[in-house]
Amino acid sequence: MTDFTWTRAQFHLPMGMIYLDGNSLGPLPKAAPARIEAMLRHEWGEQLITGWNASGWMAQPRAIGDRIARLIGAEPGHVVMGDTLSIKVYQALAAALKLRPDRRVVLSDSGNFPSDLYMAQGLVKLLGQDYRLRVVKPTEVAEAIDENVAVTLLTEVDYRTGRRHDMAALTALAHEKGALTVWDLAHSAGALPVDVSGADADFAVGCTYKYLNGGPGAPAFIYVAPRHADLAEPALAGWLGHAKPFDFDRDYTPGAGIERMRVGTPPVVQMTLLETALDIFDRVDMAEVRKQSVRLCEQFIGLVEESCPQLRLFSPRDPAQRGSQVSFRAENGYAIMQALIAEGVIGDFRAPDVMRFGFCPLYIRETDVEEAVGILARILRGALWDRPEFLRRKAVT
Amino acid sequence: MTDFTWTRAQFHLPMGMIYLDGNSLGPLPKAAPARIEAMLRHEWGEQLITGWNASGWMAQPRAIGDRIARLIGAEPGHVVMGDTLSIKVYQALAAALKLRPDRRVVLSDSGNFPSDLYMAQGLVKLLGQDYRLRVVKPTEVAEAIDENVAVTLLTEVDYRTGRRHDMAALTALAHEKGALTVWDLAHSAGALPVDVSGADADFAVGCTYKYLNGGPGAPAFIYVAPRHADLAEPALAGWLGHAKPFDFDRDYTPGAGIERMRVGTPPVVQMTLLETALDIFDRVDMAEVRKQSVRLCEQFIGLVEESCPQLRLFSPRDPAQRGSQVSFRAENGYAIMQALIAEGVIGDFRAPDVMRFGFCPLYIRETDVEEAVGILARILRGALWDRPEFLRRKAVT
Repeated sequence: MTDFTWTRAQFHLPMGMIYLDGNSLGPLPKAAPARIEAMLRHEWGEQLITGWNASGWMAQPRAIGDRIARLIGAEPGHVVMGDTLSIKVYQALAAALKLRPDRRVVLSDSGNFPSDLYMAQGLVKLLGQDYRLRVVKPTEVAEAIDENVAVTLLTEVDYRTGRRHDMAALTALAHEKGALTVWDLAHSAGALPVDVSGADADFAVGCTYKYLNGGPGAPAFIYVAPRHADLAEPALAGWLGHAKPFDFDRDYTPGAGIERMRVGTPPVVQMTLLETALDIFDRVDMAEVRKQSVRLCEQFIGLVEESCPQLRLFSPRDPAQRGSQVSFRAENGYAIMQALIAEGVIGDFRAPDVMRFGFCPLYIRETDVEEAVGILARILRGALWDRPEFLRRKAVT
Repeated sequence: MTDFTWTRAQFHLPMGMIYLDGNSLGPLPKAAPARIEAMLRHEWGEQLITGWNASGWMAQPRAIGDRIARLIGAEPGHVVMGDTLSIKVYQALAAALKLRPDRRVVLSDSGNFPSDLYMAQGLVKLLGQDYRLRVVKPTEVAEAIDENVAVTLLTEVDYRTGRRHDMAALTALAHEKGALTVWDLAHSAGALPVDVSGADADFAVGCTYKYLNGGPGAPAFIYVAPRHADLAEPALAGWLGHAKPFDFDRDYTPGAGIERMRVGTPPVVQMTLLETALDIFDRVDMAEVRKQSVRLCEQFIGLVEESCPQLRLFSPRDPAQRGSQVSFRAENGYAIMQALIAEGVIGDFRAPDVMRFGFCPLYIRETDVEEAVGILARILRGALWDRPEFLRRKAVT
């Protein structure tokens, strides 16, 4: 049984703030500052170069990978940490394309996060030879998968709408047409139960600073299905992915399985920070997180529709087709969001008019949802958003 | 005037240890633990998502880049931080190759760090179309630069021998033959004055966990010469390298100049850690560091040759042709190094028989050199290395 009172107590939540933006950057685990201070003083400070073995820094990317594996339904030993999500997208996509050398099309959709599309654009441009990226609407992906598609590159949960793809169904369809799949789990890992193995996914990648609370700049992860793990050719052939890095051979020989997806020196401090968050996740049942997340989202939608008729639901109404976030559209969405933030309710805004709210049961309660909607309704009733300070346009990150 | 007593006082040096391995992982700046604790509690903890602007996280890669720029003789605004050195090698090499589309050869040498060679191998394999990596001996680089070479990929200072290439001369030679240059400054930046602009280098990359004391997994940097900055095509086309990342366009448009070399979310905690080290470097004159480093290396060589006749100098004898490290060969090098480490003198070992010592004047004094050689001589005289515990073979990182 996941104890949500316990999980909530593990996070630092600023006084007076209702944080509905854990889908952008999750809050700080309370244990992190002391752990990092100890790591700096005792590991780096005292052990220096010997820390790579003595403190297990070298083993972290795989050890943490195994903890992520449980959360995404991956086989143990088939997830490794490192780099950023964009780099992991590139690695997965390049490897997948080489496994389908007779095909030239990468298929993605307009609901994908732009960086995934950009990385794909950069890769197909570099490869030349008629490689191309085809981008269709999310609803058109299924019919667009044909015998020309080498790889589908899809994000399970849409960063704006929260719309969730059916990973198993689309993967089955892709395989039927001879294509491989790369799944981006940025808005899935830690938010809902994922089953990459059960869905028969070929590659999966994700970040750990959103729902997984690894902190700003936390490392990414990559999963390669066991059937491809020893065949995937690493385009980013770094020394820590070498079969014997410390032999300092002049020629690259890929390491066994997922090892070859390691590239350069891992970000040890960010990895250690992530470990403090995973200490919490180790005691969490993702099925229960999902159940509670659906409850919070449904509560939010119900209350908003009841008390804020100006807002129009932008997320799918069916919880089964949604991730752990809810978006509403409003003509003055930007100003309304600024007013909300000024009142301590943190969500975020995506142009032109989307207000996005993330719900993480690990630290968000039903009373928080109630209070947040109360504030939102008050802002709308009193037209509080219509003050000059909220209408001033500035960059939102 | 660089005050080496002051700089030494800024680092945590373990009691009883003489650390001659700052060329692998530099020691901890004393200010780092408190700074990171504050960053975690007040920036991440309290500001959460707003920290990207409020605490300048988004600006860090360029702001830190400018501080690195001073150390490597780069024009301000032309260095950016992020990822790992291997990734930056790949970025630079891919961009350089696209600037010489009619050529197919990447020229490197056997003194280059293996990861650079591996990344190049991965890239040319991915590109196909007759792209290839040619590896010659360090002494044969000059004559191997011909009209087929698209790019030279060289590390200025050899990680094993400390041998230093003449960056300006080889760059001039490359340009004469129509080739571009990618310089790896892993063992140069923070160790000796570098002048990428004066040498007319096209691209330069480096890491910050060695001489620059950024900690395990510290971010890398990349320099692109102003004349290429707006022409270089980013193979790793990430959203933070986009001209307008927060417009969330579907198509990639490279950012202006060095901005396009950004990829994904920067490792904010590792960046902040590096800042505490650069606070020290900001008060350091690299010409004086170099002078003192040469003095320490000369002292070490002189004392070792006087008192340890079993060891053979593996580094160039001429200081002008050397970085800030000295290597000696010895038949029982591995066991001798283990005995040294057990006595608190930390160097490292590279197969088959190379003992490597780094000298960082920021925290290593002449008395340390004297004491280290005294211990080394005692070990060799007493054949202390010949004990079973030192002959046991184990992995050295």
